[in-house]
Amino acid sequence: MTPTIGVFDSGFGGLTVLRALLDRLPHAGFAFLGDTARLPYGSKSRRTIAHYAVEGAQFLVREQGAESLVIACNTASALALDAIQAAVPVPVLGVIEPGAAAAKAASCTGDVLVIATDATVQSHAYAAACRGQGLRAIEKACPLLVPLVEEGWTDHSVTAEVIRIYLDELVGQAGAEGLHPDTLVLGCTHYPLLRPLIEQAVPSGIRVIDSAEAAAEAAFRLFDGETANPAPDLPPHRSVRFFATDSVEKFERLGSRFLERPVRNVELVDLEQFSN
Amino acid sequence: MTPTIGVFDSGFGGLTVLRALLDRLPHAGFAFLGDTARLPYGSKSRRTIAHYAVEGAQFLVREQGAESLVIACNTASALALDAIQAAVPVPVLGVIEPGAAAAKAASCTGDVLVIATDATVQSHAYAAACRGQGLRAIEKACPLLVPLVEEGWTDHSVTAEVIRIYLDELVGQAGAEGLHPDTLVLGCTHYPLLRPLIEQAVPSGIRVIDSAEAAAEAAFRLFDGETANPAPDLPPHRSVRFFATDSVEKFERLGSRFLERPVRNVELVDLEQFSN
Repeated sequence: MTPTIGVFDSGFGGLTVLRALLDRLPHAGFAFLGDTARLPYGSKSRRTIAHYAVEGAQFLVREQGAESLVIACNTASALALDAIQAAVPVPVLGVIEPGAAAAKAASCTGDVLVIATDATVQSHAYAAACRGQGLRAIEKACPLLVPLVEEGWTDHSVTAEVIRIYLDELVGQAGAEGLHPDTLVLGCTHYPLLRPLIEQAVPSGIRVIDSAEAAAEAAFRLFDGETANPAPDLPPHRSVRFFATDSVEKFERLGSRFLERPVRNVELVDLEQFSN
Repeated sequence: MTPTIGVFDSGFGGLTVLRALLDRLPHAGFAFLGDTARLPYGSKSRRTIAHYAVEGAQFLVREQGAESLVIACNTASALALDAIQAAVPVPVLGVIEPGAAAAKAASCTGDVLVIATDATVQSHAYAAACRGQGLRAIEKACPLLVPLVEEGWTDHSVTAEVIRIYLDELVGQAGAEGLHPDTLVLGCTHYPLLRPLIEQAVPSGIRVIDSAEAAAEAAFRLFDGETANPAPDLPPHRSVRFFATDSVEKFERLGSRFLERPVRNVELVDLEQFSN
């Protein structure tokens, strides 16, 4: 019996984190919960986000037996990591600190750009985490990018134009503050699906960092040992259970785009019945 | 003491309906609830929308003493009107039937276009209501328009391009099905803020109908008498209380754009404590 890692997200985007976790921890079991009934978190307040995220974390630990948690949502990591850590008796890993650490490893100038949702940016969690790494960071909210991904316009001229507008504003602001950024952190789990368009739009010399991959690398270091490699000759078993708080059909349909493999047997769950 | 009309919405958009109601029923008292913690409803399932909307309706009737309700949200009207009517002992008016009736009054050809959220379109509530009026309707989901309004891009070239793409697809589909539409129904309460761009983008000869104005007209007919006009010489008192389930500061800031007047003294409410 392999330990179960609980992976919590506000919706589908966290499946880009799960994809990276499956690659990095092939022998772990996973229980993924997407709080799709109440998404998106990115435009909500700290109080509401913490309330919802704690309910999700408690479901994964109490009902699904998760022995560790990955908060695969930048907004919940930014605004609710402390509340989740206080509410459950298992190790909890967010995506912000790993993203900042990966930026530190990538940056030569020490100046970093971050794009994320409204709530993540307003929390300034990335700026604080980057400061902890000795980096200077400028953050920008890009609230249209999630709806564009969910509309399926991941390779569309409108999306390219929206990205250009957002990045022009961000690079201009960095210049006005005397920064010389060489790294851009994708601070939202939807953004990896826009990575080709974003890489076309960033000025040359700026490297793009994906916080999903950074979080999977951090999870590997935190949860390794028997989870990562119970016996070197065992085949990967990829035990994954999926839970959603709204339409399982929609979760299966949209989720496959984020996981890049089929999402099946999603189970519907009502989190309000698990609340304190 | 004037009767109180409860106005329920998933967020801010319903304030365009409240604006029309204030104009049409200047002597009524209003209690407006925006379920901003759980918005948007437009991408959620019927089950979840009905669950949330019934909680909101019960709050307005039981806690605020509303003697009638206007469901100022196309998605909740489309998917939850029956559930709300079954859950509360007061008259409940949605925005779909008034929108279809206004289309009937406007259309000569009997062929109508409807733009709305994903959930409203998937419910085919407008198509059914239009059929009941003897009209043929083609509906199209435009999921990017709400985020564009909320980003404040109501007069932006990107928004104009997105509207052009959506309307081209819709008009093309109508032509392919042999329809000759002369009326476009704005089936989402956010869309009135895009009315100038939409009117530029529709082919000439197509008239734009706002379901918010249509609903206010229907409310006037349904709730008139003492509510509308307790005594002809009384000045309008405009008693409005605002409730939101998430950040009251954000509600006051964004809400003013929809109501076109200041939104103040918003009260925070936790609907989950009122659920059955």
